[in-house]
Amino acid sequence: MRRIVLVEAPDAVGLVYKTTGVFFDLALNIVSTNEFVEPKEKRFFMRAEVVGEADNETLVSLLKQRLPEDAVVRVETRRAKQIVIMATKESHCLGDLLIRHYEGELNAEIRAVIANHEVLRPLVEKFEIPFHCVPHEGVSREAHEEAIREKVDAFQPEYIVLAKYMRVLSPQFVAHYPHRLVNIHHSFLPAFIGANPYRQAWQRGVKVIGATSHFVTDDLDAGPIIAQQVIPVTHTYRTRDMAMVGRDVEKITLATALKLVFDDRVMVYGNRTIIFD
Amino acid sequence: MRRIVLVEAPDAVGLVYKTTGVFFDLALNIVSTNEFVEPKEKRFFMRAEVVGEADNETLVSLLKQRLPEDAVVRVETRRAKQIVIMATKESHCLGDLLIRHYEGELNAEIRAVIANHEVLRPLVEKFEIPFHCVPHEGVSREAHEEAIREKVDAFQPEYIVLAKYMRVLSPQFVAHYPHRLVNIHHSFLPAFIGANPYRQAWQRGVKVIGATSHFVTDDLDAGPIIAQQVIPVTHTYRTRDMAMVGRDVEKITLATALKLVFDDRVMVYGNRTIIFD
Amino acid sequence: MRRIVLVEAPDAVGLVYKTTGVFFDLALNIVSTNEFVEPKEKRFFMRAEVVGEADNETLVSLLKQRLPEDAVVRVETRRAKQIVIMATKESHCLGDLLIRHYEGELNAEIRAVIANHEVLRPLVEKFEIPFHCVPHEGVSREAHEEAIREKVDAFQPEYIVLAKYMRVLSPQFVAHYPHRLVNIHHSFLPAFIGANPYRQAWQRGVKVIGATSHFVTDDLDAGPIIAQQVIPVTHTYRTRDMAMVGRDVEKITLATALKLVFDDRVMVYGNRTIIFD
Amino acid sequence: MRRIVLVEAPDAVGLVYKTTGVFFDLALNIVSTNEFVEPKEKRFFMRAEVVGEADNETLVSLLKQRLPEDAVVRVETRRAKQIVIMATKESHCLGDLLIRHYEGELNAEIRAVIANHEVLRPLVEKFEIPFHCVPHEGVSREAHEEAIREKVDAFQPEYIVLAKYMRVLSPQFVAHYPHRLVNIHHSFLPAFIGANPYRQAWQRGVKVIGATSHFVTDDLDAGPIIAQQVIPVTHTYRTRDMAMVGRDVEKITLATALKLVFDDRVMVYGNRTIIFD
Repeated sequence: MRRIVLVEAPDAVGLVYKTTGVFFDLALNIVSTNEFVEPKEKRFFMRAEVVGEADNETLVSLLKQRLPEDAVVRVETRRAKQIVIMATKESHCLGDLLIRHYEGELNAEIRAVIANHEVLRPLVEKFEIPFHCVPHEGVSREAHEEAIREKVDAFQPEYIVLAKYMRVLSPQFVAHYPHRLVNIHHSFLPAFIGANPYRQAWQRGVKVIGATSHFVTDDLDAGPIIAQQVIPVTHTYRTRDMAMVGRDVEKITLATALKLVFDDRVMVYGNRTIIFD
Repeated sequence: MRRIVLVEAPDAVGLVYKTTGVFFDLALNIVSTNEFVEPKEKRFFMRAEVVGEADNETLVSLLKQRLPEDAVVRVETRRAKQIVIMATKESHCLGDLLIRHYEGELNAEIRAVIANHEVLRPLVEKFEIPFHCVPHEGVSREAHEEAIREKVDAFQPEYIVLAKYMRVLSPQFVAHYPHRLVNIHHSFLPAFIGANPYRQAWQRGVKVIGATSHFVTDDLDAGPIIAQQVIPVTHTYRTRDMAMVGRDVEKITLATALKLVFDDRVMVYGNRTIIFD
Repeated sequence: MRRIVLVEAPDAVGLVYKTTGVFFDLALNIVSTNEFVEPKEKRFFMRAEVVGEADNETLVSLLKQRLPEDAVVRVETRRAKQIVIMATKESHCLGDLLIRHYEGELNAEIRAVIANHEVLRPLVEKFEIPFHCVPHEGVSREAHEEAIREKVDAFQPEYIVLAKYMRVLSPQFVAHYPHRLVNIHHSFLPAFIGANPYRQAWQRGVKVIGATSHFVTDDLDAGPIIAQQVIPVTHTYRTRDMAMVGRDVEKITLATALKLVFDDRVMVYGNRTIIFD
Repeated sequence: MRRIVLVEAPDAVGLVYKTTGVFFDLALNIVSTNEFVEPKEKRFFMRAEVVGEADNETLVSLLKQRLPEDAVVRVETRRAKQIVIMATKESHCLGDLLIRHYEGELNAEIRAVIANHEVLRPLVEKFEIPFHCVPHEGVSREAHEEAIREKVDAFQPEYIVLAKYMRVLSPQFVAHYPHRLVNIHHSFLPAFIGANPYRQAWQRGVKVIGATSHFVTDDLDAGPIIAQQVIPVTHTYRTRDMAMVGRDVEKITLATALKLVFDDRVMVYGNRTIIFD
């Protein structure tokens, strides 16, 4: 049996030793281990992938027993995460995720797609995945988000993927899913925050555009970054040409970030991510 | 004889035809030609590299005669540009340019290096290039810039390269050298404008850092971009690690931009560049 | 009306002038033009995008009349190319093309998918595109290729895309579709020609892997290259990990190449491509 | 005091535990640790960076005592490596290393440059580094290599950097410096092995070129790869244009590889490298 062990604690001498001591005592073989000490605030992060027969309860209780009291311990058995995707009208990121899911390459089970428009329904239903439209017209933002939350929660997802969901979410909504909302932003953050990043990029005359996948926090486009990628552009690219090549960067960047998150390789510390790949 | 012909004009039917007609009549063979029409304001840009014996005066006068009155025509004979480099204390960009110059790879003649500190003198003088220190301590900004301008102008450079010159230049200074000041900024503009971009990048937790080479205009870090490049970073990079890998990106980006500028491949339109490579 | 004009000829003074003279006389406005002279054998290539009302016949006949006899002239009206896709069992490239087609982003109409296995049928039929299985078991290579050719030709495609079609095609088959067969090879050619490139890459211990899209010629994996892209790997990647990240590079590289081909931006000269982008 | 501990052994349960147990007992704080188990032959590799006062002898002897007998243990105190550079006539890689050395960025002390031509002497002597020319004309390969070995060994370098040394070295010479000879090859190996890789690249019509830095072994261009980088090219690049942009990739790739080697981040296993960065 293969498990991921994640440990976070104030740094101290012996944390790796104590953690691997538990593995040793339970005859768990280490497949890989990574450790990082944040240098400013001396905080210790560790991810270990172990193989062996010990039962989970013993593993967790031994770790808690031997590590300092203020250590945070998480043990994940490697399996597909349960997710819900939120979208609006654009299909490139959603379509890419549907194909990866179909191929068994996503390490996640898409329980439903929830959108504020009907336009993506035929695409989603081709893949026999439930599609729910929660229109925002004629309702208050609170009521709309309440309706979405109800739909989302019905599927009990571990993560919610915003695959080009084009409405700003309120802090109330976001607070409900801490470190569980993954977004794709169509610029190389922090450049071009907000609306129309490709138009902003055209106006600035940049020679490279990009995409950023990040956890969503209260502060628009300012959450912890998981993955960023870029692609060169030239003076011949109009806004719509940037948008077209940008779509490829967006879908690959989102997929890259999700793979890291679903494999339990991402730990969040303040507004930054630690990525053990 | 090899020449670069640059034409800029309001777009109209027949501009390529008329320009190449002049080449045909003067038996100039086209080695390469590029043309671009800016789609918003319908402005035409062309760069042609031609080979042949016709004298320059005839070429220019025929082009002016046949092209519309509002066309701007420039003919450059391919030769090393005359430049002055400005720097402060850091040597990575300057050192890279000195080596390229030594190798004959810069397509420019470095007439002098002017700095506001003495620290780079030994490096520059190794290569038998004049070094002038114009210290800024104890003098007003106006007086300092005046002193620099005097030094710079004594060498009559076509371009001034800011190879990590770390002081902000006044609009008065900048206005003196329109489209002739090339700077390297240590971030992927417009992200992290201003001071300490690597610290800003660390705080934001980005996964990619970059460098931008641009012409200097009144507006700090907002001039027309010539070249941008990026490099991935991880959570293990502290500010000083980002600065270290950033130095490689900076020097390559600056050298890339200078090669384009010195080969007459860059035309400026508003705040954007058209690059014929 | 928007048209692409492609000209190829032995180099001579005046080719651009004569070609743009025809555009001028027919009041065709040039949107963009690119020209290249192959330096070894002095061969001239040109691509122009023009807008205007002149009829096609007049355009072609004027070009032929004024250009040298040995010039090759092709005029394309910009429209979706008709294509057939060939595949085997892997779905990542095919799925990506189906999604792009669904989004209207492919600049081509997929008339059918032809495979030598049944496994991809459900995916293709989700998108209401004809799927034909031509199994190779129990038949000679000649008979199998004959059967495929019959199926392909029934759809009269302009291009045939090999989206991970895993059988080697005979020179006889290839000769039937000169410069019309586009393949994706899962390595950075010419490294790792032939079978199992990712295993070869693992054995060699490379730090970067890639994908190559090329026209198919007689000589296996040696046809004119259209696009190549790469992605870094580390010592932790086993062959199957390389294959997984390789799939992303493959699908993006194939899509990039097809966009260039379908937009008439690729001209072939000997074993090399000239790409006007 | 900061130290690097490198451990290599047949994989077994408890290796991390035992190693970090030694650190714990000696009150050595772990700054970073990486571990890798080669999956085919189950071989364990570990690199740890530790800080603390324990003396080196005790550390090594405790590690040897507690780890299995067949474990290989190496402890490096972080300091500049002693190196000799070998070159021929080209200055771009050498010049880049001299500038980095001058800036204190190389993590190595260049004890001498040894070349088979005189042409680089002025450049090297600018930086007050000993330059020795060992001409190969008129002497047998054996005699030439013997003369070089004598020069090299006089400086007792830990590593020898081949910064565009353009002669093939005999297996006898190579055997003298196992895993201590670092070369830069001007292609993306294994593509374009041997002479004139840029001409080969031009002939094949590739769209990307690259450079490879590797340890030298008996088998020409087949040693363990440390770093590879690439850069896109187009149909307009002639062989000499590829060589020009290639020089930038070469110098950055070599510098990247050397940084990894000099920081003790590279372990060699068979023909592959494990890189703990």
